[in-house]
Amino acid sequence: MRPLNWAAIPAETVYPGITRQTIQGTLQTMVRYVYQPGSRFPVHSHPQEQITLVISGSIEFTVDGTAVLLGPGEVAVIPPGASHGARVVGDQVVESFNALSPARTIQPGA
Amino acid sequence: MRPLNWAAIPAETVYPGITRQTIQGTLQTMVRYVYQPGSRFPVHSHPQEQITLVISGSIEFTVDGTAVLLGPGEVAVIPPGASHGARVVGDQVVESFNALSPARTIQPGA
Repeated sequence: MRPLNWAAIPAETVYPGITRQTIQGTLQTMVRYVYQPGSRFPVHSHPQEQITLVISGSIEFTVDGTAVLLGPGEVAVIPPGASHGARVVGDQVVESFNALSPARTIQPGA
Repeated sequence: MRPLNWAAIPAETVYPGITRQTIQGTLQTMVRYVYQPGSRFPVHSHPQEQITLVISGSIEFTVDGTAVLLGPGEVAVIPPGASHGARVVGDQVVESFNALSPARTIQPGA
């Protein structure tokens, strides 16, 4: 087993002001997102369950039409298939990790 | 969907100097560990894949007999069934998150 370091994992810009880095397991996928102030991630859905950990900043998720504000140390468990989008609230950069299960092969812009 | 906050989730002491908090999804389990300097988690294994994110501090994992040092921003993907244990290196508190898939009902001391 080799250790991985986020600093060495390429970041792709998926929407303006939003970068994504991905680590693939066999049974799950771990994603690190960095959102700049003012950025938003459009509503979408996927068959994987998503557990989102917010490390810094504030971000509003809208899950199946209901808005939920998440700050540092807060967590959202988004059920498989639930629609969800997000927008940064305030002027802080948001860092978050998303664990997805089963593993997800993420397509650009998805 | 309701947001969760680690500060409101009970912490159990699993070994001396090691606390664990758990959030259960349907398909995966998210665990936050805090390890005090000098603490160690004995070698064990489980059928779940484990992705460990180190947020702060330095910790040595031994995975299938091979030692791997992880620091802030580093990640280990531990295959299902692989034996693994951990010990803190240095004098910093270690905070880490473990994503487990499939979901794991953790028993005390496991």
